[in-house]
Amino acid sequence: MEARRWLKSQYEGVGLEASIDGVGNVLGRSKNPGKALLVGSHSDTQPTGGWLDGALGVIYALEVARALASDKATAGLPVDVVSFQDEESRFVGCLGSRSLTGALTPDMEEGAMDKDGISMADAIKQAGLAGAARVKLSRDRYAGFVEAHIEQGPTLEDTGNRIGVVTGIVGLRGIRFVFKGQQNHAGTTMMKTRRDASTALYELAHRINTEFPTAAAERTVWTMGRLKVEPNATSIVPGYADLDLQFRDASDAPLDALEKIAGRIVTEMNARGGVKIEATPARAPIPPTLMDEGLRKHLEAAAEKHVPGKWMRLPSGAFHDAGIISSTLPSAMLFIPSIGGISHDFAENSRDDDIVLGCQVLADAVASALTEGVRA
Amino acid sequence: MEARRWLKSQYEGVGLEASIDGVGNVLGRSKNPGKALLVGSHSDTQPTGGWLDGALGVIYALEVARALASDKATAGLPVDVVSFQDEESRFVGCLGSRSLTGALTPDMEEGAMDKDGISMADAIKQAGLAGAARVKLSRDRYAGFVEAHIEQGPTLEDTGNRIGVVTGIVGLRGIRFVFKGQQNHAGTTMMKTRRDASTALYELAHRINTEFPTAAAERTVWTMGRLKVEPNATSIVPGYADLDLQFRDASDAPLDALEKIAGRIVTEMNARGGVKIEATPARAPIPPTLMDEGLRKHLEAAAEKHVPGKWMRLPSGAFHDAGIISSTLPSAMLFIPSIGGISHDFAENSRDDDIVLGCQVLADAVASALTEGVRA
Repeated sequence: MEARRWLKSQYEGVGLEASIDGVGNVLGRSKNPGKALLVGSHSDTQPTGGWLDGALGVIYALEVARALASDKATAGLPVDVVSFQDEESRFVGCLGSRSLTGALTPDMEEGAMDKDGISMADAIKQAGLAGAARVKLSRDRYAGFVEAHIEQGPTLEDTGNRIGVVTGIVGLRGIRFVFKGQQNHAGTTMMKTRRDASTALYELAHRINTEFPTAAAERTVWTMGRLKVEPNATSIVPGYADLDLQFRDASDAPLDALEKIAGRIVTEMNARGGVKIEATPARAPIPPTLMDEGLRKHLEAAAEKHVPGKWMRLPSGAFHDAGIISSTLPSAMLFIPSIGGISHDFAENSRDDDIVLGCQVLADAVASALTEGVRA
Repeated sequence: MEARRWLKSQYEGVGLEASIDGVGNVLGRSKNPGKALLVGSHSDTQPTGGWLDGALGVIYALEVARALASDKATAGLPVDVVSFQDEESRFVGCLGSRSLTGALTPDMEEGAMDKDGISMADAIKQAGLAGAARVKLSRDRYAGFVEAHIEQGPTLEDTGNRIGVVTGIVGLRGIRFVFKGQQNHAGTTMMKTRRDASTALYELAHRINTEFPTAAAERTVWTMGRLKVEPNATSIVPGYADLDLQFRDASDAPLDALEKIAGRIVTEMNARGGVKIEATPARAPIPPTLMDEGLRKHLEAAAEKHVPGKWMRLPSGAFHDAGIISSTLPSAMLFIPSIGGISHDFAENSRDDDIVLGCQVLADAVASALTEGVRA
């Protein structure tokens, strides 16, 4: 809360009407007339995360508001700024942006508790925010939203680009596979009579890894990083296993194709008898979100002006508040390179000149979008 | 101890000199002259195990001693009986038979502790056996050892046979595979730059399951029922994994061949780079043990007499005290069918007529071996 109050005072220092809303979002509102652009990101990170994560975009927004206000040519442009609460899911992932767009439902809030057992309601009370109003964004006030962020991956660095203009935020689907076999003695049960849940798991997982590349798009990713085998003993044929498959892409078509492949493999394996495999969606899928083309054009033009040929379009493999805000406002995102692609780690960093460049590109794009209008 | 004292009194009741030795073995020694046959099994089972496991062979031995002693034609034959201590490894697997053959080393005993933290030394003290002598078997006294046991698998039932004559006890080898990759974000790390430990594990395990059948013998078994993936989270590319492979056969040749295949797959996968796989023997291998042909002939002849054409030779997929005793004495084993192949479970059972038949076959084989001599 001390940091939020500091940020609020910074917002006020550049001439904005500042407030901390009922879930902890810090907002700065321009007094200039006309449809505003909202600029910002989140200020939290993971427990052992780095210094740039969302904080970079929050400070960029403050600097953009300050810089544009201090230049006569842009001083009249309506730039609002925001620091979103709890993007990283202490209570609810993207809590702040969900609240601002009305996507935070009462039952999401009801059960929300952090890993130490503190409820979201108590945390809000303790922060002194229980009586504060919860701000809602309206299309009447805003022309759009722009978020700057570190890439959190190695693509910009690997390709020698200094700015990334995000084309979309990848969608995410999950399937949980459950394998039901028969637990047995590993010495006395012959291979042909076994119904070994782990054998089926290894086959399914390896076939997914072998067959998915045939239908994957360039940046499709999939992961099978969580599994359970029971009883997980060296001398026992496992009777039960489960496995999570998570797959992401910036458009639905490859996700549909991969889902079909996984379904076909399960059908084929079940047709052979033996271990019975059940496949169920592991969670509500997150649909891919396309960034607004009109806003993107301004980011691209600004990038080309500052570093000609040294920027690229790319999808975001990680989720962001912009994915939530885009349901309500045209939204766009700008990336700067992460050194070694490292994020959510104390080692997270970006080059100083990239940090400066990113803010210049963002400021120019915000100014041109507000001056020329946001149209595709 | 109460059960052991009861058994000792039963041994005495059929004219044997009975004792409980320093590790809890119950022994009954015949007073008849000549080289004796030792007959018996273990009286413990697993915590939720069944009523027959080793107890069948212990009671068979008592009944064989009683029956032969009560028939004038066989009353002079020297039959010793034994109930081995702790075959199932509360402290040390096959503790009793190891002690009898001198295979129980001081450092095995030193560290021996049960899962509740009770040391073997304390348990022996509490049982009042700390001062009791530890018996050693000698080839001077014994012509051999015969153990009867339930099959603990489905082969006899599946083939319609009522007696199994064990050809050998399978050997067991283990390999632990360790997979060292790079932990990463499951959204921002592209497939081609990943070093996913789980992907390598699935490939290795599936290739083993696919390639092992080409070199396996008829009754070779292998199991990969224990593994670990770290951090085992749906959204994280795992950087570490390990996997146990256990493989068993009654002879060394297929085990050698499988070991070679596993080694070749590891070499091939390591040559591709990416995840680094290390393969190390998981434990001291147990070599396959052949049962004594001379003793087997007597079991086979007795089986053929009682159930012509309804008995078979088979290896034992589970380990037994006979595998330990065979290092010191010619040893043989007899199996009766397990209903549904179930063992180490309350549901463990055998048909009454099979239980009766097994004891008759054992008694006849013991009598003929002692009368005609044990020669291949």
